[in-house]
Amino acid sequence: MAKTSRLCSLLLRLLAAAATLCAAVVMATSHDSTTIFGLTLDAKFQYTPSLEFFVVANAVGCGYTLLVLFVPPTTSLSRLVIVFDVTVAMLLTAATAAAGAMAEVGKKGNSHAGWMPICGQVPSFCDHVMGALICAFVGVIAYFLIVLHTIYTLLSPLFP
Amino acid sequence: MAKTSRLCSLLLRLLAAAATLCAAVVMATSHDSTTIFGLTLDAKFQYTPSLEFFVVANAVGCGYTLLVLFVPPTTSLSRLVIVFDVTVAMLLTAATAAAGAMAEVGKKGNSHAGWMPICGQVPSFCDHVMGALICAFVGVIAYFLIVLHTIYTLLSPLFP
Repeated sequence: MAKTSRLCSLLLRLLAAAATLCAAVVMATSHDSTTIFGLTLDAKFQYTPSLEFFVVANAVGCGYTLLVLFVPPTTSLSRLVIVFDVTVAMLLTAATAAAGAMAEVGKKGNSHAGWMPICGQVPSFCDHVMGALICAFVGVIAYFLIVLHTIYTLLSPLFP
Repeated sequence: MAKTSRLCSLLLRLLAAAATLCAAVVMATSHDSTTIFGLTLDAKFQYTPSLEFFVVANAVGCGYTLLVLFVPPTTSLSRLVIVFDVTVAMLLTAATAAAGAMAEVGKKGNSHAGWMPICGQVPSFCDHVMGALICAFVGVIAYFLIVLHTIYTLLSPLFP
């Protein structure tokens, strides 16, 4: 039973590491430019603080997840990992939500504020952002399940 | 010791309920308009999906927090509350981050995308959004502490 639980935790962490790495790389490599009426519209993740935060948060999440794989499961350090798991889960959620909000404006614009959509002009950039968001969402779900799995382990009498 | 722990949990939940209620109300009452060159710029939270999500998430967070106060602490239901606590913590984090990303664009704009800042034109709206974000941030911190407090209670041998 303990072996199955550890295998489940390992698989979830590998999924989270892969998803956050994929999210960070896909967002970091997003770049597109176009010329409209002689003006060049250049789209990079560095131009938007929310997307920069997204790349940093997913890189941190990936690094942390890989580090945790080397923490022996019986030490007291392993019991502190849950505290960091909750922190990383909230960090990844914040990054995904902030980037998602920006992606929504990029795709649909906001006519009330006079912000035009840009995805028609820089489709390759928007495709990269969408791909990165899907990967990050998988990472958030994986971290949610990691936290729930730990709670399940701690509260096992409740789930016979 | 158990009494102090329960009091601490109660105070954190009251703080979370007050903060999320304040965030939802302040954001829901945000409204400002101005006229520039004969064009009316009308700013309401309903015009931005991220801000609508913010109001709904904080209202849900507040309602849930008040409901939990009536769950008896010794029932098995009270042990399931931690699962919902993690969910609400992530929901509030997502709402605050998404609204924060929009507030950043509203305040500073994004010259690369051609999005102009609007806070100079509708300062009252931006002040409301900023106030709501501060309240929501307090709610997120309160929920983070609620989750850590539960983990502390479950792992109490680790923290003598």
